[in-house]
Amino acid sequence: MPKITNDPDKKTWLPVKVDSDFPIQNIPFGVFLTRDDIVTIGTRIGDHAIDLGALHQLGYFEGIPLTDDIFLQDTLNDFISDGKKTWRLVRNRIGEIFDAENGTLRDREDHKKIVLFSMEEIEMQLPVQIGDYTDFYSSKEHATNVGTMFRDPEKALMPNWLHIPVGYHGRSSTIVTSGTPVRRPMGQTLPPGADTPVFGPSKRVDFELEMAFITTDANALGEPVPVDEAEDYIFGMVLFNDWSARDIQKWEYVPLGPFLAKNFASSISPWIVTMDALAPFRVKSPPQDPKPLPYLQQKEKHTFDIHLEVEITPENSVPTVVTKSNFKYMYWTMAQQLAHHTVNGCKINSGDMLGSGTISGPHPDSYGSMLELAWQGTKPLELTGGEKRAFIEDNDTVTMRGYCEKGGLRIGFGEVKGKLLPVFQPKKKS
Amino acid sequence: MPKITNDPDKKTWLPVKVDSDFPIQNIPFGVFLTRDDIVTIGTRIGDHAIDLGALHQLGYFEGIPLTDDIFLQDTLNDFISDGKKTWRLVRNRIGEIFDAENGTLRDREDHKKIVLFSMEEIEMQLPVQIGDYTDFYSSKEHATNVGTMFRDPEKALMPNWLHIPVGYHGRSSTIVTSGTPVRRPMGQTLPPGADTPVFGPSKRVDFELEMAFITTDANALGEPVPVDEAEDYIFGMVLFNDWSARDIQKWEYVPLGPFLAKNFASSISPWIVTMDALAPFRVKSPPQDPKPLPYLQQKEKHTFDIHLEVEITPENSVPTVVTKSNFKYMYWTMAQQLAHHTVNGCKINSGDMLGSGTISGPHPDSYGSMLELAWQGTKPLELTGGEKRAFIEDNDTVTMRGYCEKGGLRIGFGEVKGKLLPVFQPKKKS
Repeated sequence: MPKITNDPDKKTWLPVKVDSDFPIQNIPFGVFLTRDDIVTIGTRIGDHAIDLGALHQLGYFEGIPLTDDIFLQDTLNDFISDGKKTWRLVRNRIGEIFDAENGTLRDREDHKKIVLFSMEEIEMQLPVQIGDYTDFYSSKEHATNVGTMFRDPEKALMPNWLHIPVGYHGRSSTIVTSGTPVRRPMGQTLPPGADTPVFGPSKRVDFELEMAFITTDANALGEPVPVDEAEDYIFGMVLFNDWSARDIQKWEYVPLGPFLAKNFASSISPWIVTMDALAPFRVKSPPQDPKPLPYLQQKEKHTFDIHLEVEITPENSVPTVVTKSNFKYMYWTMAQQLAHHTVNGCKINSGDMLGSGTISGPHPDSYGSMLELAWQGTKPLELTGGEKRAFIEDNDTVTMRGYCEKGGLRIGFGEVKGKLLPVFQPKKKS
Repeated sequence: MPKITNDPDKKTWLPVKVDSDFPIQNIPFGVFLTRDDIVTIGTRIGDHAIDLGALHQLGYFEGIPLTDDIFLQDTLNDFISDGKKTWRLVRNRIGEIFDAENGTLRDREDHKKIVLFSMEEIEMQLPVQIGDYTDFYSSKEHATNVGTMFRDPEKALMPNWLHIPVGYHGRSSTIVTSGTPVRRPMGQTLPPGADTPVFGPSKRVDFELEMAFITTDANALGEPVPVDEAEDYIFGMVLFNDWSARDIQKWEYVPLGPFLAKNFASSISPWIVTMDALAPFRVKSPPQDPKPLPYLQQKEKHTFDIHLEVEITPENSVPTVVTKSNFKYMYWTMAQQLAHHTVNGCKINSGDMLGSGTISGPHPDSYGSMLELAWQGTKPLELTGGEKRAFIEDNDTVTMRGYCEKGGLRIGFGEVKGKLLPVFQPKKKS
């Protein structure tokens, strides 16, 4: 397995602003549409997007076992299937090519013209074809808040919650990339006090501040992935807004779980940040008491210190940061989620996505959803522009950001942004 | 839109046994591996599989707008994307080619050698790449039985059940075709009376007798499919065994629904029977009281009279039919399921699969799962070979069959079969 190169002092010959999420130590992977309307796989340094398909054709990945068209694809799935050793070789090579001291590409204007794009001239795409998407529910604070609101504050956590990284299947077909607008859903809800439902626009559209990880092929059908091997099958992470319609959810979710309340849309950030890039930010996860069953037990540091925030921007108004949280609050780790998911033999493929669940911190200003921040509508938030918000209103834009910072090194995820459009109006039949 | 040809008196020049599921009026679609190890799309008449890729290359589909490689693929997804008009043209043309009176192919020994296979020399594959899989819970009898066992017999149906075709997302990566063995899953369960879970093999592996339908691209993200258009987006149906681990399910499913209890494996029959083939067997679905909300209201006949049965065959023993049910018992129709699924704008793609939920009839010998048939283990079934069964034992084979019959015409689905293997034994580390 090749060494990771994460030298915090390393410099690049590309311009990178001091607070950029994308220094040469990041090297995330994504898919974009170039100025010539070609879809390619790329990476990003500072405010430059780099066409890896073009770099490969020019011979810059010589010596790394890659098929000729591995980066000339509209998803990362095949590259992810190549496995951890290959991802690391490619990431390290990109680090070399853009090193300040390396003139190979730096001094070739003809090559740079083909390989480099400014972020303004490209359009980010969904980076993977997501085969299956699973969402967990792994923040103890979030589960406790929801249990307190919807059930009994004395028994807020379900009896299984401290034993199982509770999860459920979501919808892959409606996962969209940052910037894609989202429609307020129509649906059935039960008005307070009523005993029959009504149909109409959801009145309680919410965000859920989450992160998600993307896997490679991990196992054969029927074979579990042990918890201490699970991280080898994680390609990287993205920011994730699991849009939710709370009123639809409340009426539909017993006994089989959330369905239409969640599957109208889910948004991810376009750059997948690799586990290698996140390595310097490893921290211990919260202590687990009771001790989990042996197939879920881990030692050492298995989570990451990732600062997160959510901003709401009403139409023609100014943005307000409504919460600041951190990925490190999660009770269950990604490795535990993956080990649990496969303990029954469930097959994990390249391009599957596993969401963390809402990431709520211990304090009311670190909660990961409007449901919790405005406590079921009872404590509306006052925004900077003077607006009040209990849930998300039409034409509000929700933006999530995330980054790690330590010893002068900052690795970030950029953002995932989505505007909530009014409900769909069918064309009148004439 | 071309006419459907379902003449019950039509004969074919291929041999077809009197009780065959696959007369010339069926013409299902599937994917198989030929004797030359090539994957192709095909159909079946009697005990012959027909290579549609070869037929197309020989010009038999002339005049129908099809790309050259539409049948030379390892899934039906692209063909399904071509839409209902094209499926009907192709199915009608196949009916003409194999009509007893038509000598075009019948009298060409050289062509027949390339096009025809006996069922013994081919190997059926999964017919579609399933993007998203949703399972419903649409049998009132099943929901009532489960509610009676697990909750309160007086309030067996949840308040939402008569208003919503309740559904939830399942796992696509573990859907397998008939014949694929299935492993008994390991998992967490809560022993009776205990307050902490244990880890081990599931002791309550069950089948669920279901059917499922396969869709074509139905809508743009954010746009609902009206209930009276929904059937246009259904390509066809298969038999479906939604393997379930009842003890894992009981411990994990509150509050987010079944997860590891279901996603270890689900089996489908390999031939997709088209809605056109099923047209003669349309019947009215059970009356719905209370009347559903307008977006779910339908008139006329929107379900199908499909006889179903499940057989258990222990290792080295004889088969026993343990239940006989019928698809027509389902309370919610496929069109209602699809309209509900998309009412919030959820996107439906070609190759998505929507399961009916367990199909239980009104009588105890028509229940669709061992959970109900043996009433939570309290009334084990006695099999023909003398074995007793409360749930499925290691090395039992479960076989489901389904067919329609009316006025001398029989259209069937063949079978979906799966053997339950003992739990996976990891190799010892040396």
